[in-house]
Amino acid sequence: MIVILKPGAPEQDVRALCGQFQAQGLSIHESTGEHTRLLGLIGDTSRVDVDSVLASPIVEAVRRVSEPYKKANRKFHPADTVVEVAGRKIGGGHFAVMAGPCSVESEAQIVEVARGVQAAGAAFLRGGAFKPRTSPYSFQGMRAEGLALLRRARAATGLPIVTEIMNTEHIPLFSDVDMIQVGARNMQNFELLKELGRLKTPILLKRGLSSTIEEFLMSAEYIMSEGNENVILCERGIRTFEPSTRNTLDISAVPMLKSKTHLPVIVDPSHAAGIAWMVEPLALAAVAAGADGLMIEVHNDPAHAKSDGAQSLTPAQFAGVMDKVRKSVEFFRGL
Amino acid sequence: MIVILKPGAPEQDVRALCGQFQAQGLSIHESTGEHTRLLGLIGDTSRVDVDSVLASPIVEAVRRVSEPYKKANRKFHPADTVVEVAGRKIGGGHFAVMAGPCSVESEAQIVEVARGVQAAGAAFLRGGAFKPRTSPYSFQGMRAEGLALLRRARAATGLPIVTEIMNTEHIPLFSDVDMIQVGARNMQNFELLKELGRLKTPILLKRGLSSTIEEFLMSAEYIMSEGNENVILCERGIRTFEPSTRNTLDISAVPMLKSKTHLPVIVDPSHAAGIAWMVEPLALAAVAAGADGLMIEVHNDPAHAKSDGAQSLTPAQFAGVMDKVRKSVEFFRGL
Amino acid sequence: MIVILKPGAPEQDVRALCGQFQAQGLSIHESTGEHTRLLGLIGDTSRVDVDSVLASPIVEAVRRVSEPYKKANRKFHPADTVVEVAGRKIGGGHFAVMAGPCSVESEAQIVEVARGVQAAGAAFLRGGAFKPRTSPYSFQGMRAEGLALLRRARAATGLPIVTEIMNTEHIPLFSDVDMIQVGARNMQNFELLKELGRLKTPILLKRGLSSTIEEFLMSAEYIMSEGNENVILCERGIRTFEPSTRNTLDISAVPMLKSKTHLPVIVDPSHAAGIAWMVEPLALAAVAAGADGLMIEVHNDPAHAKSDGAQSLTPAQFAGVMDKVRKSVEFFRGL
Amino acid sequence: MIVILKPGAPEQDVRALCGQFQAQGLSIHESTGEHTRLLGLIGDTSRVDVDSVLASPIVEAVRRVSEPYKKANRKFHPADTVVEVAGRKIGGGHFAVMAGPCSVESEAQIVEVARGVQAAGAAFLRGGAFKPRTSPYSFQGMRAEGLALLRRARAATGLPIVTEIMNTEHIPLFSDVDMIQVGARNMQNFELLKELGRLKTPILLKRGLSSTIEEFLMSAEYIMSEGNENVILCERGIRTFEPSTRNTLDISAVPMLKSKTHLPVIVDPSHAAGIAWMVEPLALAAVAAGADGLMIEVHNDPAHAKSDGAQSLTPAQFAGVMDKVRKSVEFFRGL
Repeated sequence: MIVILKPGAPEQDVRALCGQFQAQGLSIHESTGEHTRLLGLIGDTSRVDVDSVLASPIVEAVRRVSEPYKKANRKFHPADTVVEVAGRKIGGGHFAVMAGPCSVESEAQIVEVARGVQAAGAAFLRGGAFKPRTSPYSFQGMRAEGLALLRRARAATGLPIVTEIMNTEHIPLFSDVDMIQVGARNMQNFELLKELGRLKTPILLKRGLSSTIEEFLMSAEYIMSEGNENVILCERGIRTFEPSTRNTLDISAVPMLKSKTHLPVIVDPSHAAGIAWMVEPLALAAVAAGADGLMIEVHNDPAHAKSDGAQSLTPAQFAGVMDKVRKSVEFFRGL
Repeated sequence: MIVILKPGAPEQDVRALCGQFQAQGLSIHESTGEHTRLLGLIGDTSRVDVDSVLASPIVEAVRRVSEPYKKANRKFHPADTVVEVAGRKIGGGHFAVMAGPCSVESEAQIVEVARGVQAAGAAFLRGGAFKPRTSPYSFQGMRAEGLALLRRARAATGLPIVTEIMNTEHIPLFSDVDMIQVGARNMQNFELLKELGRLKTPILLKRGLSSTIEEFLMSAEYIMSEGNENVILCERGIRTFEPSTRNTLDISAVPMLKSKTHLPVIVDPSHAAGIAWMVEPLALAAVAAGADGLMIEVHNDPAHAKSDGAQSLTPAQFAGVMDKVRKSVEFFRGL
Repeated sequence: MIVILKPGAPEQDVRALCGQFQAQGLSIHESTGEHTRLLGLIGDTSRVDVDSVLASPIVEAVRRVSEPYKKANRKFHPADTVVEVAGRKIGGGHFAVMAGPCSVESEAQIVEVARGVQAAGAAFLRGGAFKPRTSPYSFQGMRAEGLALLRRARAATGLPIVTEIMNTEHIPLFSDVDMIQVGARNMQNFELLKELGRLKTPILLKRGLSSTIEEFLMSAEYIMSEGNENVILCERGIRTFEPSTRNTLDISAVPMLKSKTHLPVIVDPSHAAGIAWMVEPLALAAVAAGADGLMIEVHNDPAHAKSDGAQSLTPAQFAGVMDKVRKSVEFFRGL
Repeated sequence: MIVILKPGAPEQDVRALCGQFQAQGLSIHESTGEHTRLLGLIGDTSRVDVDSVLASPIVEAVRRVSEPYKKANRKFHPADTVVEVAGRKIGGGHFAVMAGPCSVESEAQIVEVARGVQAAGAAFLRGGAFKPRTSPYSFQGMRAEGLALLRRARAATGLPIVTEIMNTEHIPLFSDVDMIQVGARNMQNFELLKELGRLKTPILLKRGLSSTIEEFLMSAEYIMSEGNENVILCERGIRTFEPSTRNTLDISAVPMLKSKTHLPVIVDPSHAAGIAWMVEPLALAAVAAGADGLMIEVHNDPAHAKSDGAQSLTPAQFAGVMDKVRKSVEFFRGL
């Protein structure tokens, strides 16, 4: 961490500030130029509060040099993490697709979709039981009953299930869920992240709509710092000024995340654009950019879906996309 | 709501779609141009799922005409809502300032700051007990103990207290809090909003970093639709590309919100910029733009604050800002 | 175009407004709901000024239904446009790569790079003679002399040249340039677009940093409406809040543009991220998403480049990327 | 400037890099921590190309410490610049309002508006002759004829005129214009900025839609570095994700710019929101935040304006706003 001092900072105040840093176990390199004077802090600065340093009347600016995350940092764990769920692997060269409806709506629906996505090659069944909806007047999900239906679809197909949690109070309901999803709107629900960090269940963490890559990794760090290192990151589009797609898929986030962390990185092309016909090109782009997997919305009857119909594929459309995805994964593996 | 059909949509599919809308109690006006054919849906469209409509293969686009919020909508409640807390009013011409430290750190600190902000004219004491922090390695707040200290500061000064909640499980701890704050990162924590909607305590709802004004009002609607209509909205800066301030204060949101809703609207100039010296000009701009109040961070020793030191004022600085704020409120009231 | 009237608009004002629209040759469909009353304008609304309509005291909102661009619109020209330059084709299944240095720096440099990119399979030589730089103290390009050196590199290799224009006054200097580039910062330099529209030379139009896809197409329309229909669109990253890459590549823009327009669409992965090692994954993602070509920065000595060194590949690195790009284009063609 | 080296950078490469910096007249302070090694560059780094440094294979990151602008920098020119035009002053405590129509449409129109804004207290007449319009099918301005009509309005009222230039070729036409405006879309039209830097006419420079404050100041630096130091900066709204206003007024930019530069800073509340009724609250907020002036659109008949009608005030509405602005300027001067 580099602390840039204001011109003319009184020497005794500089000494006092240095004393504070040394009390935190840091050593200090000073360097003085014509217009600027710097303090380089050496040691573990992850606990230094940048804002408190900035509050000092003699400090002009502070620049971080090292990343504030540790357990998620590839520098300290160079090898890829492989997350294993019910015999299926993701990361470290293992590619996996999670598919299913936005919302679980009935036993018939979820079992039919589960069979469809299984036949097409999906490794996981996704489906929402607790639904975060912008409007209180929209369908809020079948909640505990939806979880029960997911279990039946799992029993019918053998597919492990991935489903979203919205509240710490619901954790007991999720005890036999194979992978727990934290949605974009809860990426910085820190109380939830900490509780999930105390479980062993793998966590699928989605990037917040306006979260930087560093904030995303800090949220993974929240889970990991409590002991659960089975975290999968999911890029699902960020909010920009462009109105023609619901969000803007940040495809660069895939190689950037993979350079900064050892955790698996998947892409959700359904939420990224919010448009069914765009799922295929974005899914292929994600494979080309090096993603470890995909999460895709599939519904047996999108025009009557209770949520997110506009971005859902039919099982037949999904089979077409999966065929191309499978061939692309193999092509890029051999490239 | 207007549904724009694709060119050449088969007549029988159009009839089927119209049938669906009619089954939802809507009536339909059709209009056909050279290149476009539209369906105008008349009636209560707040429950129509735009995405499902978009999933129809004959639909090109959907445009909402009426706002999806009702209880928060000024169209249906033209008069300003005045929220009253322990004898202090906000909204409808009543201006109030909430001030205090980002984090409660000790009894001495919170009581000292409470006395300082009271002397300067603040109507509420704010202070964080549960702290949402980007890093798991940062100070996480004193939690229940912090709430106890806030109560002591209230006892010492008579100032009602405002403090942030992060989780539904903590609601019992907040039973005697005067106003409960929902932070920007929890603006779309819908489970929390619904639970808070079942209380009588006034809720201070902060705008999410990348939330549109419509989404902000839909989150207020979540609380109100459960029965709690004591909601105060707080603009606190949005995330943009500009790096010189922590966030970008969306000052236009003040008049825009006040035109769309009857709820009180306040501004938090401390979080908006993240810079202590910028609190004064932004606070005055908020008054000029018509805000009903302010929330300002004040700390007895910003350079040693456990969080947000860079944006905290000392009690003396706060007194200076308050003096100008008070005069400005009066000036604009008479303008 | 749909005009949403304010509740209670006086009938005689509505009639006057309708009269104005009819005077512009439009016919009107009215529809009246419980809370809203709409006018649907039928006919050619591309000349209707939305802002003037909004200025009417009885108008609440206006929604466009049809796109404001015509010549660039795929609806009216379903077949892909193929741009042909010196025997090389782009669009309609023809994939092409343009490569070269950010800035032309010397004859030796540009000829060496031209030979390198030609050997690796580039179809065009790119190189900047007029350079838009954020700082007046940065290298501003060799200007006319740089154009002369580009011609020598073309003579030495046979590669057609692509180079950026910044001002209408320089048009005569560009008379024998094979393709003229309009940079992101000039995407809405309308005087320049109009003048380029009067030439026959193909134009490579880059998307502005914060331009929507519709604005991008309107800028193409500027060129096309003056008679020059040889326009190639280039997505090169948009400005967002994410700081880890220079810009955010909007990969969704590729399929979205290709659905809306018949013009060829290429991607510049060098400027998108601003990071040399990220060019390869982003180039492959662009191919997967359906791009018609790529523009890539290559420099013989990036660490001593006078501009954009951080994102430039060496000729050897470029050859490696090209090998993968070529195989990927073939793979996706056969998929 | 601080250069952060990659872990394990070979010593001889580090020495070579240091040699390069020393050859540019810089001295170097090294500091080495457990995981990081830094080079602090001391001296004039404004000509160091950050991208070339980043291209070195041993460099991980580069952080600027000092601002890249000099002539615009308040550090080197602490006193406020006062720009004087035809006896009217802006900056350094002098507040001025520029008002008039978006487009000049006829002699009758511009003279009528000029008289109206003069009577209400505007110090300058603004009016567009050359109009940057998103669509080639929209009214493009009266061009040279519009400039002639502005001159007549000036003759009739004595108000100095401010009007936008779009192209270097038009500079001779602007020889007797009192203040030349550079619009948001041309903020980085560097060829134009350089030519305007060779004039003596004061330049009103508008911030680009997605330009950072630093880029804005670098564009002012372009003009100033050529010799013309009469630059007025205008904040006019930036592009964000929020759709309810055309742009988002960055009110924080006012105090931030005034802290970083000695140039006058004005605000355009008309373009910022694009909504006539929002001009008043935003204008008052700008005054409260410390702006040195305002630019406001006024039209004698907004509903029939050829451009920007939605955001134009009538002369009577403008008089109402001016009355409040004048009182507010006085109030804040005395605060």
